Amino acid sequence: MTDLVPPSHLDLLHSNGLAFVATTHQHRPQVSPTWFLWDDDRGHVLISLTDRRQKYRNLVRNPEVAVCLLDPVNPYRYIELRGRAESMLADEDHWLIDALTRKYLKQEKFPPNPGDGGRLLVRIAPGYVRCFG
Amino acid sequence: MTDLVPPSHLDLLHSNGLAFVATTHQHRPQVSPTWFLWDDDRGHVLISLTDRRQKYRNLVRNPEVAVCLLDPVNPYRYIELRGRAESMLADEDHWLIDALTRKYLKQEKFPPNPGDGGRLLVRIAPGYVRCFG
Repeated sequence: MTDLVPPSHLDLLHSNGLAFVATTHQHRPQVSPTWFLWDDDRGHVLISLTDRRQKYRNLVRNPEVAVCLLDPVNPYRYIELRGRAESMLADEDHWLIDALTRKYLKQEKFPPNPGDGGRLLVRIAPGYVRCFG
Repeated sequence: MTDLVPPSHLDLLHSNGLAFVATTHQHRPQVSPTWFLWDDDRGHVLISLTDRRQKYRNLVRNPEVAVCLLDPVNPYRYIELRGRAESMLADEDHWLIDALTRKYLKQEKFPPNPGDGGRLLVRIAPGYVRCFG
């Protein structure tokens, strides 16, 4: 699946910038910045959601999703990946949210937040890639 | 319309960061970074498109749009504006694209590009605002 991304933009899959994730709610788009991790083995973008987030409810109804990853230094260089949320499974041992916490906060564990609801590991399988810059 | 944005986040309407604009194509979201200008008088987000852009074709079919504006210094502080492309009119005298060029490139005129097609001034009227951070 990594074949979709040309060598010139592969580094963006591993950048520590935020991902801009767009979903839909009744044909209306929504977009927000989100932590992400790239799964090189399966060619998936991984994001962490709780089951109380609008983004989760959107993806349950319509798994179509677009993700924009920017060069943290040059915002005119980016890739847009479009695809589907292939699975949304419980992140029961907090494997993903803790990995994201290490990546973005340089801390070992995500701070517990009882109001968060259940943590989910969302796998996004890109089907189309557009590069810019 | 500016009433929708709380005073704590008004500065983001005038930031020189990029706007992440999400549209849809046949129920599938698309997202990309875009220059923007805030029209304080009418409470609109203005973006410049050419009639050859996918984003333009998407908005013709479905004017629903979401725009995410980030604090250029603290990416965990942002506003998401959701609304509709209220109008898409010819930017005949290049009023908007030149204003954006001054804002983002500190140059007077947008470099002419014969392959660009016609320039449009897109007015986005937000109906819902979500703040974070």
